[in-house]
Amino acid sequence: MDIKRQLDIIKKGVLEIIEEEELVQKLKKGKPLLVKAGFDPTAKDLHLGHTVLLQKLRDFQMLGHNVVFLIGDFTAMIGDPTGRNETRPPLSREEVLENAKTYQEQVFKILDKDKTTILFNSQWLSNLTTKDIVSLTSKYTVARMLERDDFQKRYKDGVPIHIHEFLYPLFQGYDSVVLKADIEIGGSDQKFNLLMGRELQKDYGFEKQVCISMPLLIGIDGVKKMSKSYGNYIALKDTEEDMFGKIMSISDELMYTYYTLLTDKSPEEIEKLKSIHPMEAKKELAYLIVSRFHSEEKARKAKEFFESTFSKKEFPQDAKIFNFQKDTTLKAYELIVKLNFATSNNEARRIIAGGGFKIDNIKISDPNKEIKIDKELKVQVGKKHFARLIAS
Amino acid sequence: MDIKRQLDIIKKGVLEIIEEEELVQKLKKGKPLLVKAGFDPTAKDLHLGHTVLLQKLRDFQMLGHNVVFLIGDFTAMIGDPTGRNETRPPLSREEVLENAKTYQEQVFKILDKDKTTILFNSQWLSNLTTKDIVSLTSKYTVARMLERDDFQKRYKDGVPIHIHEFLYPLFQGYDSVVLKADIEIGGSDQKFNLLMGRELQKDYGFEKQVCISMPLLIGIDGVKKMSKSYGNYIALKDTEEDMFGKIMSISDELMYTYYTLLTDKSPEEIEKLKSIHPMEAKKELAYLIVSRFHSEEKARKAKEFFESTFSKKEFPQDAKIFNFQKDTTLKAYELIVKLNFATSNNEARRIIAGGGFKIDNIKISDPNKEIKIDKELKVQVGKKHFARLIAS
Repeated sequence: MDIKRQLDIIKKGVLEIIEEEELVQKLKKGKPLLVKAGFDPTAKDLHLGHTVLLQKLRDFQMLGHNVVFLIGDFTAMIGDPTGRNETRPPLSREEVLENAKTYQEQVFKILDKDKTTILFNSQWLSNLTTKDIVSLTSKYTVARMLERDDFQKRYKDGVPIHIHEFLYPLFQGYDSVVLKADIEIGGSDQKFNLLMGRELQKDYGFEKQVCISMPLLIGIDGVKKMSKSYGNYIALKDTEEDMFGKIMSISDELMYTYYTLLTDKSPEEIEKLKSIHPMEAKKELAYLIVSRFHSEEKARKAKEFFESTFSKKEFPQDAKIFNFQKDTTLKAYELIVKLNFATSNNEARRIIAGGGFKIDNIKISDPNKEIKIDKELKVQVGKKHFARLIAS
Repeated sequence: MDIKRQLDIIKKGVLEIIEEEELVQKLKKGKPLLVKAGFDPTAKDLHLGHTVLLQKLRDFQMLGHNVVFLIGDFTAMIGDPTGRNETRPPLSREEVLENAKTYQEQVFKILDKDKTTILFNSQWLSNLTTKDIVSLTSKYTVARMLERDDFQKRYKDGVPIHIHEFLYPLFQGYDSVVLKADIEIGGSDQKFNLLMGRELQKDYGFEKQVCISMPLLIGIDGVKKMSKSYGNYIALKDTEEDMFGKIMSISDELMYTYYTLLTDKSPEEIEKLKSIHPMEAKKELAYLIVSRFHSEEKARKAKEFFESTFSKKEFPQDAKIFNFQKDTTLKAYELIVKLNFATSNNEARRIIAGGGFKIDNIKISDPNKEIKIDKELKVQVGKKHFARLIAS
């Protein structure tokens, strides 16, 4: 495949490449390149947001390149300070390994086993000598480390930065030195760490890696980045029906972004999809993603379930979806405010008093009624607002 | 010996004790304490300034305590950033060991072999695991490290501080953890490092060491701290005659400080010395110090030499002494300015023109004459200014 065509695929959905010209030079060698992506096994449950990088690695594999899926089991014991406003509590070795296992189960639903090497950075980092670490830490200055947005903010605000947090980006960069990575892929919040790898490779006398940063996936609310703490996520362990339904709930605009960041569709194919009905395009997206994480058969069934449940009723197919911890209990008026269907408790009480609040098509008229979210609930507020509350 | 008497000896010449009450508690145990002093083997030639700490260690030994003379061979590879305005170039292992050997040759002229353990901190520091270092560096914050005067100044001035320089105080403090030191002695410029040991011991669950800081010895110019770079030093390798003569050249006031910091004389004995003629007291000091580093016999001979050379001639016994690198060559007028006997080149030329400049009692009348300092020269400027230039 010619370089231009390869570049089109590589650049799909990408936020930044440093430097594109170097990438072209590396591609011109005509040999499989080593593409590194590091994963901090700090999350128990993976969600679609975590798979943006995996999709990009898959793009590289389809172009014939090799991937190192690097599990930062050693660095996880420090905890990535990126974007944090405080020192992270250290994860135990057991937690790290447990999470790493989850990652390995999921990763081959996207990546090609033959072109993937799974490595743990403890393999080399735990064997560094004191002298190695003195040498590594001598290659970077305190001032430049403190230029990082998050460190700078903490330093200015008087929030403690512990010195071991400075080791995190150095260690992650050192991984690129050890692996002699040609390319490193990371989220946009990882830019500082990616560049550290590039710089350290140069300091250690190697060819610099090209850094590719990917955008963070927006969650199903269409507003914030997908995150467990925002409740706007699609977990890889979600049932096929929940996963299908959640994807159906996203906006049309977000749907095309998901196509770009989470599927094999080429930019041209995505462009063509814009000519069919968005509902159909969204069903196709949901089908593709459920197929990937469950199976085609389950995806077909989930689609049938979705159509039979929602299409024939008044409840709209693309109702907003909210995740709640199972058995969360809220008063009726609190729930309405929580879902952002009212801006104050008083407004919520008025809606309920006016008969505009239904759960599973049953009118609720006591604003203080305790609503327990122990299974999926379909909520209607007024004539326009619909939501599905998922208990997980 | 009662605690009060012990304290009198311990406190002689001391600048600060943190905390004296804890020191009293430790002394009350009635057992030999472990007194640590670290020496950075970065200097090739030792001078009297380096022996202030040794004298204090000797004081402790005479009270029955044990000394660890810790050679910072590992930390020397980083280089103590204390008081530096730039990153130090790393010393090679060979230089460090060569210097450490010099130290060991000299140290037992002051310390009691039976109560001294010589250790090298590479013994434990080079065996730290990455995990140990992450743990150690997690115990201190970037902000507190940057509060140190020298780091603060460099950070504000935009002079690079490399991250490994933050490891130096942590490693030095960790030495105290490993040694379980009861007391650490250091120069006044080492206060931050001494307190680091105290704090880390607490973090690692041990009893905190007492920190004793000693003043820096003033050089023979009576102004600046003794230092090779200021040329105001008495080297331990100086000949007995040079050593004797240099001590004779110091001011009366400085003489009593030297008694306090460099000899076994008690505060009471030093007080008594003030009743004899300062010239005699100074000869006694010179005799004591030359005896320590050469021998009593050589001290006696140096005293005789000094008296026969200087007492019977017009040249004063307490002429100022200046060290020059051998074969330094200066024009006559430049030399006078260099010795601070004239405030401008013109004034120096006028003095020479007026016949007021003699070297070894021979008048020099050409202000541009090249003076080569290839052996000791006795210089007279006008009627009042005398200097001995020592080529070394």
